[in-house]
Amino acid sequence: MRVKAIALTLVLFCVAALAQDKPRRLSTTIPDAEFPRLNADGSATFRVQADQAQKVQLLLELGQSTYDMTKGKDGYWEVTTKPLLPGFHYYAISVDGFASNDPGSRVFFAARKEVSGLEIPGPDQDFFAVKDVPHGTVRTEWYLSKTTGEIRRIFVYTPPGYDQSTARYPVLYLQHGYGEDEAGWSDQAHENFIPDNLIAAHKAAPRVIVNENGMTGVHFQPPPTPRPGATPNAPPPVRAVAQFFMNERYSAVDGVISHDLIPYIDEHFRTIPDREHRALAGLSMGGAQALRIGLKHLDEFAYLGAFSPAIDITDTTRDYDGALSDPAKINHQLRLLWIGIGTDDFLHAPVSESHQALEKAGIKHVWVESSGAHVWTVWRKYLADFAPRLFH
Amino acid sequence: MRVKAIALTLVLFCVAALAQDKPRRLSTTIPDAEFPRLNADGSATFRVQADQAQKVQLLLELGQSTYDMTKGKDGYWEVTTKPLLPGFHYYAISVDGFASNDPGSRVFFAARKEVSGLEIPGPDQDFFAVKDVPHGTVRTEWYLSKTTGEIRRIFVYTPPGYDQSTARYPVLYLQHGYGEDEAGWSDQAHENFIPDNLIAAHKAAPRVIVNENGMTGVHFQPPPTPRPGATPNAPPPVRAVAQFFMNERYSAVDGVISHDLIPYIDEHFRTIPDREHRALAGLSMGGAQALRIGLKHLDEFAYLGAFSPAIDITDTTRDYDGALSDPAKINHQLRLLWIGIGTDDFLHAPVSESHQALEKAGIKHVWVESSGAHVWTVWRKYLADFAPRLFH
Repeated sequence: MRVKAIALTLVLFCVAALAQDKPRRLSTTIPDAEFPRLNADGSATFRVQADQAQKVQLLLELGQSTYDMTKGKDGYWEVTTKPLLPGFHYYAISVDGFASNDPGSRVFFAARKEVSGLEIPGPDQDFFAVKDVPHGTVRTEWYLSKTTGEIRRIFVYTPPGYDQSTARYPVLYLQHGYGEDEAGWSDQAHENFIPDNLIAAHKAAPRVIVNENGMTGVHFQPPPTPRPGATPNAPPPVRAVAQFFMNERYSAVDGVISHDLIPYIDEHFRTIPDREHRALAGLSMGGAQALRIGLKHLDEFAYLGAFSPAIDITDTTRDYDGALSDPAKINHQLRLLWIGIGTDDFLHAPVSESHQALEKAGIKHVWVESSGAHVWTVWRKYLADFAPRLFH
Repeated sequence: MRVKAIALTLVLFCVAALAQDKPRRLSTTIPDAEFPRLNADGSATFRVQADQAQKVQLLLELGQSTYDMTKGKDGYWEVTTKPLLPGFHYYAISVDGFASNDPGSRVFFAARKEVSGLEIPGPDQDFFAVKDVPHGTVRTEWYLSKTTGEIRRIFVYTPPGYDQSTARYPVLYLQHGYGEDEAGWSDQAHENFIPDNLIAAHKAAPRVIVNENGMTGVHFQPPPTPRPGATPNAPPPVRAVAQFFMNERYSAVDGVISHDLIPYIDEHFRTIPDREHRALAGLSMGGAQALRIGLKHLDEFAYLGAFSPAIDITDTTRDYDGALSDPAKINHQLRLLWIGIGTDDFLHAPVSESHQALEKAGIKHVWVESSGAHVWTVWRKYLADFAPRLFH
């Protein structure tokens, strides 16, 4: 049944693509802007003005893939990429060494700045499509955190019908990754449309979703001196990254979530304020935070999710201050421990070995090894897999 | 009493400024970014990387004021401005003819793209400060518009206590200007903190505020051929702009607001669904829309606000299809007609002459002639003036 539906979607997508040999608007392109645009073969064309520039480049995926742009007779610089993977891509335009945004595209907060985004349509994106179903709301709220002394901004998704109902709801606390902020899950990942569609299809129970800023008090710096023989600006060693984030105590984030945010949410929203109706999940650094904070507060959370987490579990008797040392106990306490990683993710090795360490210790968990890299395209799929498993 | 309070605020601001001779972070600077930053004299310093660039410039106010940046020994380009007016400024960095964002600053949607923003602190900004008072919520909602056939995004401010109350509230529909979008009033103008503070000070009644996208179906193009003798890229004649926006029918926006949005809001929020509890206001093009749509639907709105509106009323017997032709009737129908313009606004002449035409015809209105140009710094002050006059 499901295979048939996927096959049908693929066929419809191909028919639509063939019928559509003209360039198309992208959802991330500014209304009325002509570029960037999508070509029939899945490539994209970019075009910018830079009259006196010597060298203009398109930097895809935060610089992992680079295209030289060429200056046309009309003075505009242009390039067409090879066909791109469906999903969400970051990119920048570099002009004579200045890397910044494409004025034709919307921006998203990533890598500690505002970055141009590109949504390439594809056959498996129906789960976050904007449909004519009842829609929930993403609320921007401000509350006082005693931990930091700040009025902090949070995002709170309330499901369709929340306002009209008197029911109480479970809550998923959902955290972004390093260098991003509390807007990531709604802006890049459609955290609202995913549960809207799941709820409309009766595949998940309505719940509240809360996003806080996980960068609070986190000051990770890549190792300052490159390893001998490493290329300049090479990424830091994967193990060092995974171990840094896994072993960080996140005391400021823990304080904000445990002492300030959860009481605020339980006071201001119609929640079911107990551990059986509370989940904590996150991606990358946020996945490390979900495990660190969640395993410390098992009285608060019964469901934990780690999406492409920066973790490197090697010794379940000692990691996390021994929180995993009694498998029978942790299996009893946690209703769900969900861990996923893409095979092209730079964290694939430490995460899959963490999974093996949990397996070996007999600690029950859902293990998802998907295709894909360390990107939002993967994380929104993970949310669609994770969300229906909560709050049964 | 009010003069004393202003004087005290000014003194405190000067003391704070003198005590603070180190550069300071701006609220619009990315967390952890060193630049742009504010100097003690109210100037700002900008710094970007552009290794191979020949010419780098800071373009303030969408290009109205330009600074050449200079390359230092460390290879970074830098400039310090003259002291800047307190308030919100747009800016861009131009590198060899490529105008884009400063990676150190947050962006805001303006002029049909994402533009770097700069919030310069000042003595008269307490009215939108983030204080420890009860805070309302800005909700991002999606609803189906029959007029356009789209699932459209709107922002809805609900006042503090809305969720806990069973009361019904009046509604202000508040529109942005040309080239902006429905996020402008919350992102650039703090439409939430302004009523939060007014409500906490018992200066305004709680109300719901709704923002839609007013660019729907509006395709204004400046006159394509420059007038004889005009400089290239000169702005179009002011009268032509004011007349275009005033006389535009806005049928798509009217349909969206009147047929789709108001029924949606009245169905999904606890509103008082009558004209005595409904206001329509906007800035620039949005001010023109507020008058055009509001005067057409006097059965729907009893309060209208036009902030620096693109209007040129010359004949009250004929303009707006005669909606103003019976002064006694319009004075009876409208509880408030509010019009404001800054003395440095490029629209000052047609708007102040529109005011004179209304005066001459005996059409009652609140007239505010303030300092300032065509900028958000002015419009958020106008909201603070307008909001307490509503819904008595």
